[in-house]
Amino acid sequence: MATFLLLLDLLGTFVFALSGAMLAVRHRLDLFGVLVLACAAAVSGGIVRDVLIGATPPAALTHARYLVVACAAGLAGFRWHALVERLRNPVQILDAAGLALFAASGTGKALDYGLGPLSATLLGMLSGIGGGIARDLLVARTPVVLQAELYAVAALAGGGLVALGRLAGVPDPWPLAAGAAACFGLRFMAIRHGWQLPVARPPGP
Amino acid sequence: MATFLLLLDLLGTFVFALSGAMLAVRHRLDLFGVLVLACAAAVSGGIVRDVLIGATPPAALTHARYLVVACAAGLAGFRWHALVERLRNPVQILDAAGLALFAASGTGKALDYGLGPLSATLLGMLSGIGGGIARDLLVARTPVVLQAELYAVAALAGGGLVALGRLAGVPDPWPLAAGAAACFGLRFMAIRHGWQLPVARPPGP
Amino acid sequence: MATFLLLLDLLGTFVFALSGAMLAVRHRLDLFGVLVLACAAAVSGGIVRDVLIGATPPAALTHARYLVVACAAGLAGFRWHALVERLRNPVQILDAAGLALFAASGTGKALDYGLGPLSATLLGMLSGIGGGIARDLLVARTPVVLQAELYAVAALAGGGLVALGRLAGVPDPWPLAAGAAACFGLRFMAIRHGWQLPVARPPGP
Repeated sequence: MATFLLLLDLLGTFVFALSGAMLAVRHRLDLFGVLVLACAAAVSGGIVRDVLIGATPPAALTHARYLVVACAAGLAGFRWHALVERLRNPVQILDAAGLALFAASGTGKALDYGLGPLSATLLGMLSGIGGGIARDLLVARTPVVLQAELYAVAALAGGGLVALGRLAGVPDPWPLAAGAAACFGLRFMAIRHGWQLPVARPPGP
Repeated sequence: MATFLLLLDLLGTFVFALSGAMLAVRHRLDLFGVLVLACAAAVSGGIVRDVLIGATPPAALTHARYLVVACAAGLAGFRWHALVERLRNPVQILDAAGLALFAASGTGKALDYGLGPLSATLLGMLSGIGGGIARDLLVARTPVVLQAELYAVAALAGGGLVALGRLAGVPDPWPLAAGAAACFGLRFMAIRHGWQLPVARPPGP
Repeated sequence: MATFLLLLDLLGTFVFALSGAMLAVRHRLDLFGVLVLACAAAVSGGIVRDVLIGATPPAALTHARYLVVACAAGLAGFRWHALVERLRNPVQILDAAGLALFAASGTGKALDYGLGPLSATLLGMLSGIGGGIARDLLVARTPVVLQAELYAVAALAGGGLVALGRLAGVPDPWPLAAGAAACFGLRFMAIRHGWQLPVARPPGP
């Protein structure tokens, strides 16, 4: 079970890093910039969560495996970006899996550190979407996770389910599993069917 | 007194969150993006301050009321943005009140955690303007608080007065009150009379 | 020796702050915005490093000298920006010195706080380039340190040498000196000869 979770965790890291590398290639950054965006996309969310709950130094820095995997994904994205572009659909599915895993485990970790359910859910969401926000800010564009179909909302739903499950005394790993499944399912359906949240209509010119 | 301060604190949170929601509506973010910008504008400054002085987890995460108020403001901004746009003047005054309160209380908290007067003043300023910076960065524009009329400078003056008062041994709550009043007064006059700091003239084309 | 290191440290702070001030002037920020960008460029890297290794409050806040030097550089940049523009070459050399020093000392500090060699090297790099990233994000442009000739790579090489030296048991200050020299030399040669990392070619229109 633990090995399975670790594998999922590293897979999520790889996919998030790949999204950073692809964005860097599109913005014509050099090899190093590609690696930086890969790492930023993969570990920023977890690092911000760890700093906020006081778990310093962050796990992404104390275990070299996350940065190693992120750099490997960066190199892969640098070398095979044309191929990855064509794989957009599978990548989106993997990305949804990474989001689900990060949101659920992030909420669990925040609860372990004594935060309340509301804050823990928010930190779980931040674990999931923080990497995408950092990635987009580094190339000076409005973070796509604030605009994509039910992206952060899916993370929020997954994290909330984890918090509720723990609050109700459901034993691990069921709250984590339910939260991750809910997040993945919601995001998957949103991609499939183009589900969107309402957008306010600002006064036109 | 404590209740009055808490009310002011929540009012400042609400107004800052409203400014984030309005910016999000203007950038056509969806409902969730509006809530994120509302929360970012309301609590980022305090969170950065708390992380820097080592007070983790930050108060904005341990007390749910701040996020609840920020989300309420986000919903209000989403629903009634046209109305809020027309109220620009009252909102600017409330925003000045929020800035004054955050700068004064932020400086006080940093002093309580043992920082020197100069650093505490800077952290007070950061408490006041950090939310506006995070809000603007999330839509990839140069933070308006670095350009508006005496915005950050008013926060700096208010924080400095708090630090000086504490240094001189003036008993609470007078340093806080004086600092908040100075910040509010300065910002109010700057809005009224369009006071500006000098701008350097870069070499023309 | 310690005095010499402190002098170098403050010189690096001054030069980094100057780069922030120059960017602010070019973006027509007011005097306060110039000071903010000067401080952000000078101390952000060190502050992020200190927060990540759990050394709060950060050194840049507990010792007033860094902020004082950064503000002095900001004022100088505001007043004499035309002159500084003409001195671009000497400033680039000083900037390389600042980068080398920050990367080496940042890696050393992270090792002192018990991080592994890989993470410490990354934190050293972050100490060196973090200020430039913060400076550029504040005016909403893609950080130049992700694009310049071997900028972050030089910091990485210098930090890595420090970590290797410490790992091999070489006594201080030799690892620090070797790391700083390597970083400076690499960056200097890259400026001289226009050395670049490869850039991936995204699919054309």
